Amino acid sequence: MKNRFKIVTIVGAGLLGASLGLAVKQRSLARTVRGVGHRQASLDKALDGGALDEGFLDVREAVPGADFIVVCTPAARIPEMLDLILPCCSPETVVTDVASTKANICRHARDTWPRPLKFVGSHPMAGSEKSGPEHASAHLYEGSTVLVEEGNHLAPAARDAVCEFWRAVGADVVGVDPVIHDAIVARTSHLPHILAAAVASLVARQDGLRPFIGKGFKDFTRIAAGRPEVWRDICLTNGSAIVNAIDEIMADLEKIRHAVQEADGTRIEAFFEKGRLGRHEVLGA
Amino acid sequence: MKNRFKIVTIVGAGLLGASLGLAVKQRSLARTVRGVGHRQASLDKALDGGALDEGFLDVREAVPGADFIVVCTPAARIPEMLDLILPCCSPETVVTDVASTKANICRHARDTWPRPLKFVGSHPMAGSEKSGPEHASAHLYEGSTVLVEEGNHLAPAARDAVCEFWRAVGADVVGVDPVIHDAIVARTSHLPHILAAAVASLVARQDGLRPFIGKGFKDFTRIAAGRPEVWRDICLTNGSAIVNAIDEIMADLEKIRHAVQEADGTRIEAFFEKGRLGRHEVLGA
Repeated sequence: MKNRFKIVTIVGAGLLGASLGLAVKQRSLARTVRGVGHRQASLDKALDGGALDEGFLDVREAVPGADFIVVCTPAARIPEMLDLILPCCSPETVVTDVASTKANICRHARDTWPRPLKFVGSHPMAGSEKSGPEHASAHLYEGSTVLVEEGNHLAPAARDAVCEFWRAVGADVVGVDPVIHDAIVARTSHLPHILAAAVASLVARQDGLRPFIGKGFKDFTRIAAGRPEVWRDICLTNGSAIVNAIDEIMADLEKIRHAVQEADGTRIEAFFEKGRLGRHEVLGA
Repeated sequence: MKNRFKIVTIVGAGLLGASLGLAVKQRSLARTVRGVGHRQASLDKALDGGALDEGFLDVREAVPGADFIVVCTPAARIPEMLDLILPCCSPETVVTDVASTKANICRHARDTWPRPLKFVGSHPMAGSEKSGPEHASAHLYEGSTVLVEEGNHLAPAARDAVCEFWRAVGADVVGVDPVIHDAIVARTSHLPHILAAAVASLVARQDGLRPFIGKGFKDFTRIAAGRPEVWRDICLTNGSAIVNAIDEIMADLEKIRHAVQEADGTRIEAFFEKGRLGRHEVLGA
């Protein structure tokens, strides 16, 4: 896999982008790693940390000559980034991204890019509550799962290159339709984040609760420590699936509320038993 | 503190009871540790593991002569256990418990025991998803917080003995009124458990989701692995506070649902920011 790519361009020099740069450099997957940053300060951090060979403030200057581009900017800004990238690409350039919502972005590419598409969406299930290139790690993607767009409109060679890229940085690849992807992560990821944030706010409304906080609360709300602007973007780009997930959980909460109010021990126990078994099943533990 | 107590009787030989026995033995806090079990098999495990000196199947035989009794049975069965203990106690015997709901149990003691009360409720914020005496640890309570009943109806010497006991096994003690306790833990502990179980069930309804499960989901739902019968008892003994907590979270979910449906980025970001800051504040991190 050494120098499988000539020039890899990573757009966005945050935690995900800089970690990807480090992984590509460490595994010698490309001759040159270019990075595009919003501000020179983040670019400098990524350059100093050895994640990038070259830094650019304008994406249009970093695209020409690149054979592989990964867009790591916030999800809500990826469509406009793709609009900037497309005219500067060669017909061979393969483009992917790392956003945790996919339908919106993949639909935009499908509507605007030539067929068969050389843009193939990705969602690496990797990350951290920490952010910024200073927390980057060459190992961030190792052992993670990357969900990669599937569909007949994609150029098979481009899709193969994207899968190969993720495997080369240590990840497993699973294919998924973008709309199905978003409906699923609305339940497995976005809904838990919303509930964790809601519980953390609710508890914080009252003073003096520190002695009542145990490990359970800490783990349950850990995901609420994530960056608000990332979660805003996720809600803005996956709104209808998230609204559906909230409706589903509210209907379930209404049922358990009723069982608790009626002091119906059998139904209450069945509710917790379903949760316990459900978790076991889903985790395959 | 060596032999501070003559005979400590631990009623219930599960994880919490057997761990307490081990801690008392290891720190030589009592001359004799008696244990009361529901079945001989659990008693034997606790005896073999060194958590107890003597085992009893009938609580009434294990009470006479004991100067300190800790009731570690499931929460819903503590009131009837107190009814069995009271007639066998000496006037000096101090009694406490370890249930995670307090108002119900403390109200029962207040209504039935002579004043000033020698029963003082406790809630050690310690535990594990594992259960049974085979998982007992002498260190379970070390560094944990134990919430101990406060009130003018309690015998001061009894309350002091209970606080001293918990400190002797390595815990910090915080005093609290039982009704306030239950209202708080409904939000900090019971509500998160209900939400984790609801999300785990909801996600388990769909097949093939394993690739979509990340560390966030795993941590968020970890508490859903707890024993259903323990959580049934908690809901049965703290019903009205739990119903209130569900109502509060449903009102908050209704608001964020609306903001997501309206694609109101400012309100969505403020919601996640409140969650992030709230968690930070509550954990004091």
